[in-house]
Amino acid sequence: MKKNDFKKSLKKVHQIKINKDSTIQDIIEGLKDTGFNAKRLALGCEIYETMIKDADCVKFFGLAGAIVPCGLQGIIHDFVEEGFIDILVTTGANLTHDLAETLGYHHLQGDMNVEEINDSRLHEEALNRIYDVFLPNQAYEGIEDFISNLSIREEQMTVSSFLKLLGEKLPENDKSILKICARRNVPIFCPAFTDSGLALQLGFHHPNVNLNHMKDMLTMVDLAWEAKKAGICIVGGGVPKNFILQSLQFSPNAALYAIQITMDRPEPGGLSGASLKEAISWGKLNEKALYSTIISDASIALPLMLWYLKQAFNR
Amino acid sequence: MKKNDFKKSLKKVHQIKINKDSTIQDIIEGLKDTGFNAKRLALGCEIYETMIKDADCVKFFGLAGAIVPCGLQGIIHDFVEEGFIDILVTTGANLTHDLAETLGYHHLQGDMNVEEINDSRLHEEALNRIYDVFLPNQAYEGIEDFISNLSIREEQMTVSSFLKLLGEKLPENDKSILKICARRNVPIFCPAFTDSGLALQLGFHHPNVNLNHMKDMLTMVDLAWEAKKAGICIVGGGVPKNFILQSLQFSPNAALYAIQITMDRPEPGGLSGASLKEAISWGKLNEKALYSTIISDASIALPLMLWYLKQAFNR
Amino acid sequence: MKKNDFKKSLKKVHQIKINKDSTIQDIIEGLKDTGFNAKRLALGCEIYETMIKDADCVKFFGLAGAIVPCGLQGIIHDFVEEGFIDILVTTGANLTHDLAETLGYHHLQGDMNVEEINDSRLHEEALNRIYDVFLPNQAYEGIEDFISNLSIREEQMTVSSFLKLLGEKLPENDKSILKICARRNVPIFCPAFTDSGLALQLGFHHPNVNLNHMKDMLTMVDLAWEAKKAGICIVGGGVPKNFILQSLQFSPNAALYAIQITMDRPEPGGLSGASLKEAISWGKLNEKALYSTIISDASIALPLMLWYLKQAFNR
Amino acid sequence: MKKNDFKKSLKKVHQIKINKDSTIQDIIEGLKDTGFNAKRLALGCEIYETMIKDADCVKFFGLAGAIVPCGLQGIIHDFVEEGFIDILVTTGANLTHDLAETLGYHHLQGDMNVEEINDSRLHEEALNRIYDVFLPNQAYEGIEDFISNLSIREEQMTVSSFLKLLGEKLPENDKSILKICARRNVPIFCPAFTDSGLALQLGFHHPNVNLNHMKDMLTMVDLAWEAKKAGICIVGGGVPKNFILQSLQFSPNAALYAIQITMDRPEPGGLSGASLKEAISWGKLNEKALYSTIISDASIALPLMLWYLKQAFNR
Repeated sequence: MKKNDFKKSLKKVHQIKINKDSTIQDIIEGLKDTGFNAKRLALGCEIYETMIKDADCVKFFGLAGAIVPCGLQGIIHDFVEEGFIDILVTTGANLTHDLAETLGYHHLQGDMNVEEINDSRLHEEALNRIYDVFLPNQAYEGIEDFISNLSIREEQMTVSSFLKLLGEKLPENDKSILKICARRNVPIFCPAFTDSGLALQLGFHHPNVNLNHMKDMLTMVDLAWEAKKAGICIVGGGVPKNFILQSLQFSPNAALYAIQITMDRPEPGGLSGASLKEAISWGKLNEKALYSTIISDASIALPLMLWYLKQAFNR
Repeated sequence: MKKNDFKKSLKKVHQIKINKDSTIQDIIEGLKDTGFNAKRLALGCEIYETMIKDADCVKFFGLAGAIVPCGLQGIIHDFVEEGFIDILVTTGANLTHDLAETLGYHHLQGDMNVEEINDSRLHEEALNRIYDVFLPNQAYEGIEDFISNLSIREEQMTVSSFLKLLGEKLPENDKSILKICARRNVPIFCPAFTDSGLALQLGFHHPNVNLNHMKDMLTMVDLAWEAKKAGICIVGGGVPKNFILQSLQFSPNAALYAIQITMDRPEPGGLSGASLKEAISWGKLNEKALYSTIISDASIALPLMLWYLKQAFNR
Repeated sequence: MKKNDFKKSLKKVHQIKINKDSTIQDIIEGLKDTGFNAKRLALGCEIYETMIKDADCVKFFGLAGAIVPCGLQGIIHDFVEEGFIDILVTTGANLTHDLAETLGYHHLQGDMNVEEINDSRLHEEALNRIYDVFLPNQAYEGIEDFISNLSIREEQMTVSSFLKLLGEKLPENDKSILKICARRNVPIFCPAFTDSGLALQLGFHHPNVNLNHMKDMLTMVDLAWEAKKAGICIVGGGVPKNFILQSLQFSPNAALYAIQITMDRPEPGGLSGASLKEAISWGKLNEKALYSTIISDASIALPLMLWYLKQAFNR
Repeated sequence: MKKNDFKKSLKKVHQIKINKDSTIQDIIEGLKDTGFNAKRLALGCEIYETMIKDADCVKFFGLAGAIVPCGLQGIIHDFVEEGFIDILVTTGANLTHDLAETLGYHHLQGDMNVEEINDSRLHEEALNRIYDVFLPNQAYEGIEDFISNLSIREEQMTVSSFLKLLGEKLPENDKSILKICARRNVPIFCPAFTDSGLALQLGFHHPNVNLNHMKDMLTMVDLAWEAKKAGICIVGGGVPKNFILQSLQFSPNAALYAIQITMDRPEPGGLSGASLKEAISWGKLNEKALYSTIISDASIALPLMLWYLKQAFNR
């Protein structure tokens, strides 16, 4: 591009104005013409909207981080219920916490500025801390109860089949991730399943069960292969991020849409902080893909994104 | 507190639900019962609201970071116009960029994912990069023009008086920070004024001017001393943060309200990432103060906060 | 503690001086009396030293992050060879990269400041990017070759047994992690094994293999249970961190020594950034444990730590 | 470059090996062929070495962050004493802390894991916290004493002249930054001088003093202009970073060497986290410059760098 043409091709930064009657649509629309992470958040919302509108797109959603303890269980539930997620990949921890809440246990709000709260004290009180949220030990007892009474016929079922079974056994609930995924036939993959309190209870009470992890891995590759188009939304990185990306590496078409919400940084080389752009070199992301990495705590960005999408699709 | 009493004193994490018709008031209200930075953002909004309602409270606002290039000039303008800021402390850079925009120049949107954009190319195009925003050199020429034509009678006026003079000379503008502060008599302190393009132009064209920095510093201490109550909102840290805090150290009452929005972290010991709590040890923050540090890009948190406040005060 | 006593109990910050002839022992000794992460690094070195000297201590080492691509394969090898690691928990990615290097393939140095290097170009060149390191596709072909020729008799062996098998089949090598662990009988646990290129090749070529993940999980709990004392070193967090910690939760004695090297931050609630202190509430870390979290790229901290330990033990 | 040529042009990642008898020269040499921040640290050391060897290079050093409280006062002292710094730009805080230590006061080591240490308690004890370091109030009393007894003849002297005066009045000291700079004629610029406890004492006791900040700014531009070649080392960013860079913008030749040590990140757009590369677009850094940004706590990277340089120059 020639000198002047290049400069002319650039859009102005729009100095956003906000009114008390602005809608989330207005705000996101306004932020699209700013810079830094505000713009990235707006682009992320827009890309997700496009991804949903594209009927050929299979939407892979990778979820790491302590989403349920933080109070975002219902957010993920609604993403699934609204059809915004086709395939969910998550951590054993999130499923353990989801199970606890679905069984009627609760996380508690802590305040780390209160001097009398310290970890030794919490240990005495049987409260397990996740930053500023506490999970009482009782929740684990409830999970133990539930899992020990489970009858498992196929000892070599896949992890995803086991998670579907769990979802089916659970009572109706307007926030449960396991439940809504089972009801909506959204498969849940959990490659690091054994790294969870849920898996420990399963292992303690059903020692002969050998959930098939390898088959899930191959199924995931098939799902990526069969997708006409692939779109991904990565929350927090970790194993879910790589598990989705490695499947796409083997599909004929790399992802065409990608959103990532993370607080990690790229320079130390870990995958959670890696830029989406890097995935182009691997053939996991198409070089013409629409993509946006949002450097934000997901607890702020995810609710805004759901709010935007609900308004955009009038649900 | 006794064991059971302690546990009972804790509130449940509320699993937030969002509807398409939710308002920003609803969302913030909902996030207040979650965890992590979502909760901190909600607390920050609530504390700012309380601070505004408290007629005795003088609201100190510290603004670092590239707020104007990012497109948030109008956000700060509205904070001032609505009376949400009583005293502004900021960087020379923000004022330089504010001046450029007020004089009719614009920042441009860059896209760091486009391969053909690189810094050597930008240098040839006379575009100065601020992450993903570009400022054309012309803006500096415009500033030079404006400053060189300024008649400065008091060569030893304070920095804040000089900034007021600038605001008075500027045309009406619905986004300019310098203008609205001059019109609303909100003093602007800029302790690192000479660290800016604006100051360079002043120095080049008015070499005998010796703006009095020391007097501003003493005035700031007086303002803190005279405040019945002090409330602070710190965006991005840096010199503005410390300048406000050091003034409060000498006032009889430390700050009673405090909000901080930052992406820096505390462990390396720099002030921008330091917790607000630390300020209690210095006597800058009252130990009974309401305070919240929000780990977020200000480009996301500040617009949400303004939106919330405008709705809360129906403006 | 009384007022004056408290102040007197505090040690002075020692302003460190460095000579050209200082040893790493001197430097770490000096940094112990400073602050911030320098002090934490020094404490980490000292704690590791104590942990090695304590004959009753079982040393659990959690390794996430792209350690091998970065060039630290030999560092981990030496930690194992010197007996500084008793149980290794790591990611499938690190083992995949270790296998590639051990089979004679190499990672390449990239320079992200060179304008002509971009991800589309790298994709054409069949170079897969990990921040500023590139892995040629050939490495994956080599891994495929090796795995496809493997004869696997026990289709339901555990992941750790499979990894031991790999180590046994590999040629002698003075940097290979898989090899030295096999030779030294240091078990490798890899809970998210299926999240790796290595697992994909295993699945593609041996579709009936169903590596037992659950049994590894239970074995790990036993190892934690049987340890007289437990010490942990966590690099980068992720699944390895939680897998070690969840095992300790069920042992009669929580960890007495703990070191963590991470660049993630605690506020967004993810485990990789969580403080070690938090683990006290869970009963995973003893409230009297010696512990230090070092906020540093492991590529800087780990070599220094190994260097310090080799000097300390004169090896 | 053609396909194969490109791949061939890349160097292998060297898997570093460390012996107990390795020197810091060996370690840095080894890390140069790794990746991530280890490589960046090694490049930074090498660039600094080159910069010192280049007789035409004027070495600008920008120092933000709580370097003196952390225990690195002697490190900076030695950089100056060895001739590794020609012009120092720093914060008022570092000079305040330097003055305190030089007058015989000390910072104290805190331990933020000890439950009984909290900020209210510290406030009662008159201990001011800087992350895990405490500064007793007495230090400020000592500074007040020193400043109030100072006779200042030129009320409009520049900040740098005032700082030189301070250095001259101070007793000999093998760690003091103010002292060694005065003795070695290394000018100290402090654009945000009034943002410091030192400035407050000056203002309280010498209310007519109006230190000339503008003249320092112009002098700094002259120094940059007159430098045959410019090299910069930026620790922690902040005002010192921009003050150096803005001066270089007006020199005929942009910097040819640049090192930056920071823990801030670039995406939120603040200068402290901005890449050095960005400075190329501004004409502050030459597009052919050697440069390296090290993402590390300076408390770790700076001592290593000094150690390396002392060995390299055999001092």
